[in-house]
Amino acid sequence: MRIPNHIGIIPDGNRRYATSLGLTKDCGYIHGILPGLTLFKQCQKLGIKELTFYGFTLDNTKRPSIQKNAFTDACIKSVNLISKENAEILVLGNTSSKNFPKELLPYTKRKVCGKGGIKVNFLINYGWEWDLKNYTNSSSIMSSDISRIDLIIRWGGRRRLSGFLPIQSVYSDFYIIDDFWPNFKETHLFEALEWYNTQDVTLGG
Amino acid sequence: MRIPNHIGIIPDGNRRYATSLGLTKDCGYIHGILPGLTLFKQCQKLGIKELTFYGFTLDNTKRPSIQKNAFTDACIKSVNLISKENAEILVLGNTSSKNFPKELLPYTKRKVCGKGGIKVNFLINYGWEWDLKNYTNSSSIMSSDISRIDLIIRWGGRRRLSGFLPIQSVYSDFYIIDDFWPNFKETHLFEALEWYNTQDVTLGG
Repeated sequence: MRIPNHIGIIPDGNRRYATSLGLTKDCGYIHGILPGLTLFKQCQKLGIKELTFYGFTLDNTKRPSIQKNAFTDACIKSVNLISKENAEILVLGNTSSKNFPKELLPYTKRKVCGKGGIKVNFLINYGWEWDLKNYTNSSSIMSSDISRIDLIIRWGGRRRLSGFLPIQSVYSDFYIIDDFWPNFKETHLFEALEWYNTQDVTLGG
Repeated sequence: MRIPNHIGIIPDGNRRYATSLGLTKDCGYIHGILPGLTLFKQCQKLGIKELTFYGFTLDNTKRPSIQKNAFTDACIKSVNLISKENAEILVLGNTSSKNFPKELLPYTKRKVCGKGGIKVNFLINYGWEWDLKNYTNSSSIMSSDISRIDLIIRWGGRRRLSGFLPIQSVYSDFYIIDDFWPNFKETHLFEALEWYNTQDVTLGG
């Protein structure tokens, strides 16, 4: 089976999950933390080399502060959880804004946790324009320590990138899962990998 | 019904179409010309403001020359056909390479054909790195005269951008049609538009 080196994760649908249960939108994010850990462990076991989670964007921070606080908190907890595993964590985003959680500053240089191994990137207070601001080529972008992405999996049914790493995504395969992210199941990843295995790799050729 | 302003077209599957009929790969492209004209007329009628066709890329020109000649010829014929309609045509790509067809040089500045109206862009000998080479912001890219894309429709079943306008695609919705491009049917566009109509617009918010 052809396994991707690098998987991008767009964990969407947290708010819709909450409203589907009659909760307020901000209540969704906390249910997205454990799915991230489970997915991480699956990828680690499969020998995936790099995993990038779309945490939150500069655009997202324009939402009501109750939501902003909820997703920021969920991101901090997610990074903390994975920092207890064997992984090499990088948190990437605009740290010069008050919306960047100071708790995550220690991860803005890649940090080896436990025995290291799989690279795990979290985009936190990220923006594609911010990422490209010093662009002259792929190695001059803010996210230059994040490699080309082979497979992007998006939960929540939307079929779009929403500003996710435009340079690393130029040749990525997209797989969409209709379930909301908090309804994550391990079979989702297997289903995405089975589909990926049937795709060719041309890198634009 | 919510109609996109700008639709991106990735007309893939020409070679697979040819081999499915027992023909050599280069024979597919000629069957992709009339579908482009039909799609153009549909979009014109619907009041779509801008349409961008992914012609061929710098990467594509590394293919065997019999294929390169075939897709180049199909692109020239496609532009010529639409130049007989009411449209404002722009051909965008690296003109300083021998792979750029000189027949299309008159369109490298947007040209009003007939009574003008819908903008039609063809990416010819295009490359995403070439596009971004002078990037400082969205208005400094080579494709700065091509607007943000609302909906990208890709034929041929692959779920990837393959380097298609990375800046204009950051918020685009993607719709995939499994049929090969030469098997284009008018219902494909309607099906894509019906799906698009059910999507929300957040522009990353």
